[in-house]
Amino acid sequence: MPSPAFRKSFRVTWVDTDAAQVVHYSNYFRFFERTEEEFYRQLGFSFTDTAKRGLWFPRVEAFCQYKKPARFNDLLEVELTIEEMREKSMKLGFKVFNKETTALLATGYVVIVAADKQTGRATKIPEDIVEKFKPFIK
Amino acid sequence: MPSPAFRKSFRVTWVDTDAAQVVHYSNYFRFFERTEEEFYRQLGFSFTDTAKRGLWFPRVEAFCQYKKPARFNDLLEVELTIEEMREKSMKLGFKVFNKETTALLATGYVVIVAADKQTGRATKIPEDIVEKFKPFIK
Amino acid sequence: MPSPAFRKSFRVTWVDTDAAQVVHYSNYFRFFERTEEEFYRQLGFSFTDTAKRGLWFPRVEAFCQYKKPARFNDLLEVELTIEEMREKSMKLGFKVFNKETTALLATGYVVIVAADKQTGRATKIPEDIVEKFKPFIK
Amino acid sequence: MPSPAFRKSFRVTWVDTDAAQVVHYSNYFRFFERTEEEFYRQLGFSFTDTAKRGLWFPRVEAFCQYKKPARFNDLLEVELTIEEMREKSMKLGFKVFNKETTALLATGYVVIVAADKQTGRATKIPEDIVEKFKPFIK
Repeated sequence: MPSPAFRKSFRVTWVDTDAAQVVHYSNYFRFFERTEEEFYRQLGFSFTDTAKRGLWFPRVEAFCQYKKPARFNDLLEVELTIEEMREKSMKLGFKVFNKETTALLATGYVVIVAADKQTGRATKIPEDIVEKFKPFIK
Repeated sequence: MPSPAFRKSFRVTWVDTDAAQVVHYSNYFRFFERTEEEFYRQLGFSFTDTAKRGLWFPRVEAFCQYKKPARFNDLLEVELTIEEMREKSMKLGFKVFNKETTALLATGYVVIVAADKQTGRATKIPEDIVEKFKPFIK
Repeated sequence: MPSPAFRKSFRVTWVDTDAAQVVHYSNYFRFFERTEEEFYRQLGFSFTDTAKRGLWFPRVEAFCQYKKPARFNDLLEVELTIEEMREKSMKLGFKVFNKETTALLATGYVVIVAADKQTGRATKIPEDIVEKFKPFIK
Repeated sequence: MPSPAFRKSFRVTWVDTDAAQVVHYSNYFRFFERTEEEFYRQLGFSFTDTAKRGLWFPRVEAFCQYKKPARFNDLLEVELTIEEMREKSMKLGFKVFNKETTALLATGYVVIVAADKQTGRATKIPEDIVEKFKPFIK
């Protein structure tokens, strides 16, 4: 049985586009992040909650492959899956679809490390967070 | 004798543009801010220095009037003047020119308040900062 | 009877914030625009539709007054009203609320001109668009 | 003898930062692009010139590895090298340094395809552009 993916839809807004009349390539990373934030919200926590517990989740790697352009007003659907879950890091995978045409526009990932806010060192992802993530691990 | 203005030049980068193939209107406020930062740097301080002294400088008003579009690759020159200097606030005026054609593209201002980082309340702009600003007050 | 306002809610995303841990002041103009886009979508047209009819709607003025900061993860509600409707231009007013606390965070406006894409000159707002806007004129 | 790299310096501006008080991870891709634009400018052409010749240069892949954070006001130096030059595509490599401490903050790349603006299909990079790039190929 495939693990469930988390999905989030949103419209391309005018400022997302550039003079080629398509979404600027850097903005896909912002779409990834917005989806990640909604995923955490659904799981019942946020960056600010974990920051209060002394944890940051900095990105250490980010990748995107662009297949088809997205344009102003397009309704996008971003699918998030947990590609890998390690003791101190995780890899989140993303697929960006045009929700109306169902075309796959881009795929990518980010690697995130749990870091102690004081020391900056990598630290274990707390057990309660790992538990919440488990159903979504690929 | 007119008071001197501070000037800063920079290129329009691709991500500044939108699908109308001109600079997105929100980005002029970012150009204002970048110019303000360079102005402070020339005067010998920065937002981070004043933050260490317990001061924020939040914007309370921002305005821009758009006259002609700026396009990708245009060399802009932004002129900053101090329009008003009050005890706890100041109004910075901006003019954005196309440096090559000398056309005036936009004019605007921001009103900035000195605020205590702890209480959030408006507070006096420190004397040493006022002294540095004086030559630029209109 | 008061004219109806159009309302749109969305979350503050991480990239909207700056190192003062509040929403960057330029982003309120992007919130205005995203609300405007949703308003047009509800009325049944978009920037791209009007562009096909040879019309741009460039902004000629933009203003925002900041009252309270918005922070990461805040649920915002933006209220749009048509403040003024002229032959060739209109003024859209915006109020940004924290939807959970109901606090008013910012108010502002943009003045938009209907412009012929070819000549760049101001032109009449088409009748069918004026008709759609009428119920929202203050 | 090592091939020359192209280098471009610029300051981190306030809006580049996020609530973790470091540069937002998506902005490194914008730094890459700004450096690429300056590189083309030094070589004597721009995106708009090639657009007039009927060519786009869309990105098909983008990657960044983050090593140390950049903060507001940091002076960055971005180094660009041509990692690979193919008939219809090229891979540009980037290193982002803190110019004052010389610390390496991030490394990454973008893969760019020459595309016919009309058909959208991949096409040969024009000979005159390849000639200009040659001295910078790794």
